[in-house]
Amino acid sequence: MSDRIREILGWYRSENSGVLTNLYRLLNHGRLAGTGRMVILPVDQGFEHGPGRSFAPNPPAYDPHYHFQLAIDAGLNAYASLLGFLEAGAAEFAGQVPLILKLNSHDLLHPEQDPLGAQTASVRDALRLGCVAVGYTIYPGTAERRLQYEQLRELGEEAKAAGLVVVVWSYPRGGGISKDGETALDVTAYAAHIAAQLGAHIIKVKLPTATLEFEEARKVYEEQNVPRATLTERVRHVIQSAFNGRRIVIFSGGAKTDDATIYDEVRAIRDGGGFGSIIGRNSFQRDRASALNLLGNVISLYKEEKA
Amino acid sequence: MSDRIREILGWYRSENSGVLTNLYRLLNHGRLAGTGRMVILPVDQGFEHGPGRSFAPNPPAYDPHYHFQLAIDAGLNAYASLLGFLEAGAAEFAGQVPLILKLNSHDLLHPEQDPLGAQTASVRDALRLGCVAVGYTIYPGTAERRLQYEQLRELGEEAKAAGLVVVVWSYPRGGGISKDGETALDVTAYAAHIAAQLGAHIIKVKLPTATLEFEEARKVYEEQNVPRATLTERVRHVIQSAFNGRRIVIFSGGAKTDDATIYDEVRAIRDGGGFGSIIGRNSFQRDRASALNLLGNVISLYKEEKA
Amino acid sequence: MSDRIREILGWYRSENSGVLTNLYRLLNHGRLAGTGRMVILPVDQGFEHGPGRSFAPNPPAYDPHYHFQLAIDAGLNAYASLLGFLEAGAAEFAGQVPLILKLNSHDLLHPEQDPLGAQTASVRDALRLGCVAVGYTIYPGTAERRLQYEQLRELGEEAKAAGLVVVVWSYPRGGGISKDGETALDVTAYAAHIAAQLGAHIIKVKLPTATLEFEEARKVYEEQNVPRATLTERVRHVIQSAFNGRRIVIFSGGAKTDDATIYDEVRAIRDGGGFGSIIGRNSFQRDRASALNLLGNVISLYKEEKA
Amino acid sequence: MSDRIREILGWYRSENSGVLTNLYRLLNHGRLAGTGRMVILPVDQGFEHGPGRSFAPNPPAYDPHYHFQLAIDAGLNAYASLLGFLEAGAAEFAGQVPLILKLNSHDLLHPEQDPLGAQTASVRDALRLGCVAVGYTIYPGTAERRLQYEQLRELGEEAKAAGLVVVVWSYPRGGGISKDGETALDVTAYAAHIAAQLGAHIIKVKLPTATLEFEEARKVYEEQNVPRATLTERVRHVIQSAFNGRRIVIFSGGAKTDDATIYDEVRAIRDGGGFGSIIGRNSFQRDRASALNLLGNVISLYKEEKA
Amino acid sequence: MSDRIREILGWYRSENSGVLTNLYRLLNHGRLAGTGRMVILPVDQGFEHGPGRSFAPNPPAYDPHYHFQLAIDAGLNAYASLLGFLEAGAAEFAGQVPLILKLNSHDLLHPEQDPLGAQTASVRDALRLGCVAVGYTIYPGTAERRLQYEQLRELGEEAKAAGLVVVVWSYPRGGGISKDGETALDVTAYAAHIAAQLGAHIIKVKLPTATLEFEEARKVYEEQNVPRATLTERVRHVIQSAFNGRRIVIFSGGAKTDDATIYDEVRAIRDGGGFGSIIGRNSFQRDRASALNLLGNVISLYKEEKA
Repeated sequence: MSDRIREILGWYRSENSGVLTNLYRLLNHGRLAGTGRMVILPVDQGFEHGPGRSFAPNPPAYDPHYHFQLAIDAGLNAYASLLGFLEAGAAEFAGQVPLILKLNSHDLLHPEQDPLGAQTASVRDALRLGCVAVGYTIYPGTAERRLQYEQLRELGEEAKAAGLVVVVWSYPRGGGISKDGETALDVTAYAAHIAAQLGAHIIKVKLPTATLEFEEARKVYEEQNVPRATLTERVRHVIQSAFNGRRIVIFSGGAKTDDATIYDEVRAIRDGGGFGSIIGRNSFQRDRASALNLLGNVISLYKEEKA
Repeated sequence: MSDRIREILGWYRSENSGVLTNLYRLLNHGRLAGTGRMVILPVDQGFEHGPGRSFAPNPPAYDPHYHFQLAIDAGLNAYASLLGFLEAGAAEFAGQVPLILKLNSHDLLHPEQDPLGAQTASVRDALRLGCVAVGYTIYPGTAERRLQYEQLRELGEEAKAAGLVVVVWSYPRGGGISKDGETALDVTAYAAHIAAQLGAHIIKVKLPTATLEFEEARKVYEEQNVPRATLTERVRHVIQSAFNGRRIVIFSGGAKTDDATIYDEVRAIRDGGGFGSIIGRNSFQRDRASALNLLGNVISLYKEEKA
Repeated sequence: MSDRIREILGWYRSENSGVLTNLYRLLNHGRLAGTGRMVILPVDQGFEHGPGRSFAPNPPAYDPHYHFQLAIDAGLNAYASLLGFLEAGAAEFAGQVPLILKLNSHDLLHPEQDPLGAQTASVRDALRLGCVAVGYTIYPGTAERRLQYEQLRELGEEAKAAGLVVVVWSYPRGGGISKDGETALDVTAYAAHIAAQLGAHIIKVKLPTATLEFEEARKVYEEQNVPRATLTERVRHVIQSAFNGRRIVIFSGGAKTDDATIYDEVRAIRDGGGFGSIIGRNSFQRDRASALNLLGNVISLYKEEKA
Repeated sequence: MSDRIREILGWYRSENSGVLTNLYRLLNHGRLAGTGRMVILPVDQGFEHGPGRSFAPNPPAYDPHYHFQLAIDAGLNAYASLLGFLEAGAAEFAGQVPLILKLNSHDLLHPEQDPLGAQTASVRDALRLGCVAVGYTIYPGTAERRLQYEQLRELGEEAKAAGLVVVVWSYPRGGGISKDGETALDVTAYAAHIAAQLGAHIIKVKLPTATLEFEEARKVYEEQNVPRATLTERVRHVIQSAFNGRRIVIFSGGAKTDDATIYDEVRAIRDGGGFGSIIGRNSFQRDRASALNLLGNVISLYKEEKA
Repeated sequence: MSDRIREILGWYRSENSGVLTNLYRLLNHGRLAGTGRMVILPVDQGFEHGPGRSFAPNPPAYDPHYHFQLAIDAGLNAYASLLGFLEAGAAEFAGQVPLILKLNSHDLLHPEQDPLGAQTASVRDALRLGCVAVGYTIYPGTAERRLQYEQLRELGEEAKAAGLVVVVWSYPRGGGISKDGETALDVTAYAAHIAAQLGAHIIKVKLPTATLEFEEARKVYEEQNVPRATLTERVRHVIQSAFNGRRIVIFSGGAKTDDATIYDEVRAIRDGGGFGSIIGRNSFQRDRASALNLLGNVISLYKEEKA
């Protein structure tokens, strides 16, 4: 076991050995094995945005096997998806890549300011499918966040007892947050902290902008001169907000963008002490060769030491 | 076992052998046995629209035994109905036709934009009645779809553990979708995908029109030139959206129509890679001889190779 | 056992010996051991106000270990926090300071007049983490207080059966109470009494002002000449309202303030028969040396006899 | 926390923080706090041998409060007893000495070669009585040891989940072991090892003689020259047999004996790496002053460094 | 995934993907990863024979960490042990070697012709310790085998639902079998077959002699000329008896023997189609360097093609 992995597992000493074992599996799989960094392929866009919007740009991605194979061939740490997609390939690809079962999902077929996902899979499903972790999305800032926190609490307790890692997607949304505020630095840090306090082992947030959403936060950030000019500084603040680096935080870039931007983001995540990337649309909405190239470059960047 | 059935069962390798066995029974019963196509008789209109609207056009259909016998005599793959109708004939017709117990139902006695069915039967009911499958209707797009997805999740997990096939009727509805949008191509594909992600083994959707409902989807469909001019092309897109053909999707025509239209639709389903038809009102709202004739012709069309 | 501790435990004779044992642990730990007074460090501000607002003024406080160590080094009676913060250090600091697990939490990301927390941890969590007590916040005065009282009831019953102390944070809020009224004397006394009636072993309220919020209360307070001019008198009234002193009531000062004010408040709590202080922001939002100095002085004041 | 306590807790890293906390409490209470040694007062003789045989030599010991007070006044680490004795004093002495609830008991009212205890208390009892640990006696070598191991397994799993320490009394008995063999070195080491493999956190065995009971063992012990001439050497072998010192093993002397013998035994336990003594009859079957003197001397011996 | 692993997993298609994943982990760990062969270190001798007989020949083996490290450094597929030994190292070695938790154990402290183990750990223990499999020993031929088969059935069902592999140690014993008969060919084949019929995924038996124990069996073996002169032929017959090779069968040599014998046995296992070795006493009862040498040679032999 590398010293870095030993250090990371050391942050989770309250957890049982099953959780530690599955954390180890996540951290020791793929090309980033042992570095303490991770790149994960998440595919829940079909449910969130519809299959056409998600997969028409790269039709082989309609096939659930495509994503398993992409995660394997790219040497990623894990593949995260929903019940149906995992059921459609878990037997064929058993053991070849760590799996994360998303336990809740949300679709966009009904207009609503405050999204509220539904539980769409169980901890027992995760065990029967051979997963190392369960995933759950919370929307801090929504009116019904309480229902989400309570469902996460219950599923998380059950998952931990069964030795599964708990990964929380924390996406601020809802009526009290402006559109820009959803990725504001104070809001992103807040979202990461809430997920950590709810008992998440791994936290996934969006990359923050330099914006500050809440007036009370702005006062403190400015008084204390919290550095936020560069993305690296902002990543550092988010990591700090997640128990001063004692919880694994990974970042997504969100919508499809150009590769140079992605690489710059990865450098910022790396240099700011982030633990890695979760790259969905930017990997499965392009052809396979291009995706493997992109993911390969991202992994290589994570392997480089900070300049 | 025919090669085609072997191929289809191969898509469900994560499922236990009980589920595979019941899938096999569905696929190997009736005149379409072994072809990988299916025609199913669903009778839940009495609950949905009231008995008079449903059965007065063909009064023998008030009798639950009528439908069992029709499904048997027509050589269909299965008969799907509600608790009461199945309880009224399951003993008499035991073993003669695969049965699907619909676990939820919805009536129209209270006006509401966003329908929300009630659970009206259990997995235990399905076992004691000798069913091969349970059915469940979701209404993606409704305000309370979350309750439906969670109930389906729980019932589906229980049904699979008991070796039962899970059939999901996926009908987009609700305040955020226009009337035409309910059968729009993007929406229908979305509905099929959601059902598949929720763990459905068999998915039932309506035949889609060429309409596109959502602006974000329209952009992608047009950019990517997703073919949608013909019904065959649209069926093909829905099949693709349900895990690239790795899930069985069957189609209904909906309200009563003329036979020539039905035959054209069946040809389109067949040629677009659809797995069959579920024909309710068009079979039980006409006299028995005419129904047997219609169903016989539909089956014959499915047996023909694509021209 | 000191006479005072014996007297205090005597108020809880209906409780099982497990509850008495954990009360004893709380009362016999740290520099105030045996005095019947307590100073507790609560750290749930990160969830309530966001990590930046909470910890940027003293960045080492982003680290969960910081708070365990501060509570230990300051010789406090207990450290109270949320699931994530306790999970992140409970193994490393096992046994070194009594722990209180807050079972519900509330964030400020969605604007709402009437706050309603979410259950974010369980009694089983408290046992596996080695806690002596569970904590729960109620907001008397809010529209949904009923949900809170009922959740507290259920969790409290479970906690007591497991021998855990139940600590209730009672914060009046909501549409029917003016901003000033939240700390009005009648309202604070009312909040303390409700918590006591709900079965709290230890009650935490804010220090009351001399304001009276409700007209019906004002009439009685004035007719009966309830003394309320000094903070000491007001503390005495709150203690009286919590079963005439038969329940432990501790006080918080709330937002950051100057030290002289804190010391005056502590003297008033002490002289009015209060049982101690719960000091969050005023201890972790300053540097460690200053915090140890402040907490040391507070403890010394509690150890002094009333003048 | 002393380095020694930190080292000892480090052996139990698979356990939850609740178990670690209660281990810490056991190891940090009384005059031996922090040394890693412990002296425990066990009083289950009344059930095992009858009250007259047990308490007539020192009639105040009929009173359950006597034993609580003795353990407190002698500065012991813990007091272990049965449901009734603990219920009779747990409230009065709450928090003053760590309690161990024996979950099974055995009486001698029916003649039987192979003893088999009965479960006489539950893990829930231990929680409501405020205990830090549960105790369970197994009789390796008896015909029905299987029933005991299985009951211990189930109770131990429940206790650990609730954060309680599991103490196992391991007494070889039964038809296949000679009377002398019950304290033979090979048999004692075997008994300690079995308890450790069953998941005991703390193991209590009798001090071994130099006898070897089993022929197959004798061969190995003699071939390998396992030192066993002195009691110190034999203690060392037992400690080694309990996971090479990674489990806490404490020793009893058994029947009443003279003090010099007891002190010699304590020196041997101490010098052989044993973790302490559990002294029942030798402490409560003499008058209180004499008992305090004996226990004081024993504790002093444990505090002395090995010569 | 190697073709051989794909072939092996193909024999277990009725199992859920969790079981397949954990089988994959067993088959893809260590120096034999991907070959379809396995070498496992089992350490339950301390419980079975006592610690002195087991570990005195190599005293470092008293330490539970020794065995984890030996299995890791030798590049074995898995380490199998009892609750206590796994609890004592599962956190420190989390993820570094697949673990098998033996759920039952048997000691030799009571003389009995027909051994009957006790359940000493649970499926929940296996999950919280991060194990890939559970193990269970049956003694076909004993009077109480029914209790064992029924306990195995219940635990196996629970383990499979949780995605764990079920490993069965099948040791013929008891009053109806002669001492020589315990390793007779007919009896060994019978034992392997019973384990397979009870649902074992992996079966562990002793290497068979050419003896035939039962008269009725002898007649058939001789009539049918079942080859049994060489160990290779006898291994082949056992493999055939375990579902014609569709279940993984591994072999132990039993008591300590010389290395040349072990290597001959490994060649016979390999050439007869056996899947590997489980080597306990022959690896941990010698010094570490010698053990690593032996295990290294065994692994090399398995990697060689049959001559």
